[in-house]
Amino acid sequence: MTDGSRVTLAAIAAEAGVSLATMSKVLNGRTDVAPDTRARLEEHLARHGYMRRGASPRKEFVELVFHELEPSWSMEVIEGVEDVAHAAGLSVVLTVSGDRHTPSADWIDGVLRRRPVGVVLVFSDIQERHREKLRSRGIPFVIVDPAGDPSPDVPSVGSANWSGGLMATRHLIELGHRRIAAITGPEDMMCSLARVDGYRSAMNAAGLPIDPDLIRFGDFHPAGGERHAHDLLALADPPTAIFAGSDLQALGAIAAGSAAGLRVPDDLSVVGYDDIALARWMSPQLTTVHQPLRRMGEEATRLALRLADGATAETLRMDLATHLVVRGSTAAPSR
Amino acid sequence: MTDGSRVTLAAIAAEAGVSLATMSKVLNGRTDVAPDTRARLEEHLARHGYMRRGASPRKEFVELVFHELEPSWSMEVIEGVEDVAHAAGLSVVLTVSGDRHTPSADWIDGVLRRRPVGVVLVFSDIQERHREKLRSRGIPFVIVDPAGDPSPDVPSVGSANWSGGLMATRHLIELGHRRIAAITGPEDMMCSLARVDGYRSAMNAAGLPIDPDLIRFGDFHPAGGERHAHDLLALADPPTAIFAGSDLQALGAIAAGSAAGLRVPDDLSVVGYDDIALARWMSPQLTTVHQPLRRMGEEATRLALRLADGATAETLRMDLATHLVVRGSTAAPSR
Repeated sequence: MTDGSRVTLAAIAAEAGVSLATMSKVLNGRTDVAPDTRARLEEHLARHGYMRRGASPRKEFVELVFHELEPSWSMEVIEGVEDVAHAAGLSVVLTVSGDRHTPSADWIDGVLRRRPVGVVLVFSDIQERHREKLRSRGIPFVIVDPAGDPSPDVPSVGSANWSGGLMATRHLIELGHRRIAAITGPEDMMCSLARVDGYRSAMNAAGLPIDPDLIRFGDFHPAGGERHAHDLLALADPPTAIFAGSDLQALGAIAAGSAAGLRVPDDLSVVGYDDIALARWMSPQLTTVHQPLRRMGEEATRLALRLADGATAETLRMDLATHLVVRGSTAAPSR
Repeated sequence: MTDGSRVTLAAIAAEAGVSLATMSKVLNGRTDVAPDTRARLEEHLARHGYMRRGASPRKEFVELVFHELEPSWSMEVIEGVEDVAHAAGLSVVLTVSGDRHTPSADWIDGVLRRRPVGVVLVFSDIQERHREKLRSRGIPFVIVDPAGDPSPDVPSVGSANWSGGLMATRHLIELGHRRIAAITGPEDMMCSLARVDGYRSAMNAAGLPIDPDLIRFGDFHPAGGERHAHDLLALADPPTAIFAGSDLQALGAIAAGSAAGLRVPDDLSVVGYDDIALARWMSPQLTTVHQPLRRMGEEATRLALRLADGATAETLRMDLATHLVVRGSTAAPSR
């Protein structure tokens, strides 16, 4: 990969006062070394910027890590990753990290043992000390749709969230809406912030006031969309349109509208986000911002494979374009 | 695993006229042996019922193979498999076999190399010669929701398809429907046949005639549901209710109803199948047969792990219960 390994492993082992065998075990992610010893030896490896060489990766796997599996959403990313991996003769090892936004210590040990060609993380981030371990073994990683704000040297594939928010809101304004609400994802996720900023810019550009009461942060699930939409529709001066942060949230918002006796799109317009495969099969069909989820999975995997091949990718971060798909859930306001 | 290996590998190699090293390569799924040689040596292994021993499986992976990834549907199975595997300290290797209902030769070589603890196949089947290879390496496999009609010795986890069809149809009959159509999956899939037989039994039990024009075989996708529903609604004496083979088909049927100016459930009742996570977020909320997809993934994985542990499972096949979930897409007929 690189030739930054001027110091031999034996020398590092000697310095750390352990046998070469023990040092090798740590390098290979074996778990039969006491945790504190491992931690200490990892530090030695990191200090010397030791890079594995000779033993090439097994060229068998790509690791795919999800923070959580979302119905429909995740599937398209998985398909993209699987496709590119398969074409390269590689298998995909799938991990769901659960509540944690970062995969666990267990997981990193497994990765070091499996020695994948590359790691693709979806909506997840990775701790600096885990990054260091992957780097020292020459295992590249790429983040899809970063949840946090990764440092600029972390390769990532996202999509144009700000433009998506702008287009969705502009569409509603062009239909004649003035009271437009935005329900988005968690406030600590860059994609949520970018979409709401796109919404704000569209409102500003149209000379419309931004009412903080009409902006809600939540999660990307239907139940959250329903709850927020319910509260929004109960306001003294309720919105006539809602820009949701995901198609699932949009479904929740439509359900809240129904419960309040409002028909979509006649009494309430709703724009989703993602354009999941089912969006065109909803009643009404969902107007939504298309996010190229499958292609994001493909590009992230390609980038990981290129980095594994030693390419110094000029661009470590890319945002794929989003576009608005106008269907049946938006119309001019009736009042 | 078993002690069926009375003949040594060396003896089989000698009989076949190759070196022990070559024979080992074949046993380990290595690809650097000419295909016809490999095929010939596999025959020798199979004839002696040679079972790998000594070298235990790596205990690192469970292999999960999909015929295709369906939005929402597959995700729940994946979650179930991932959960059980993770709890057992194993990673999941995911393969999508594509158009083929059986995974490719490439895949089987990969499996022999990876030596997973077990293999879970979803909607897929596996060729007899591939089964033989897995057996000889002591790698158990379990099929989820068999697409074909696996022989009784193939471990499988399904769900009560016949009961599901019966319950859905009985519900429509109880609401007062008489002209009830059934749209189901491919005619060569057991689950499709079982569901339609359940439909037929419910019709028979109620003394209602079965009109072959009202039974359609297709695929499980929305577009197929839409096409069939369109044709059904164009009949001289159209049905007042449709029992669909999947929630996705049900969405297609609802869309076809809308296009024909029919409201669901007032003018047309629709029952889905699966109860995907989004079913309760549709408008109207979908009445559907709940199939425990996540649990099917869990049970299949547990069964594979038990078999890997050498358990001679008394039951190699199990069908988990289904139940009807009544929501908003069904009502008494208006005519």
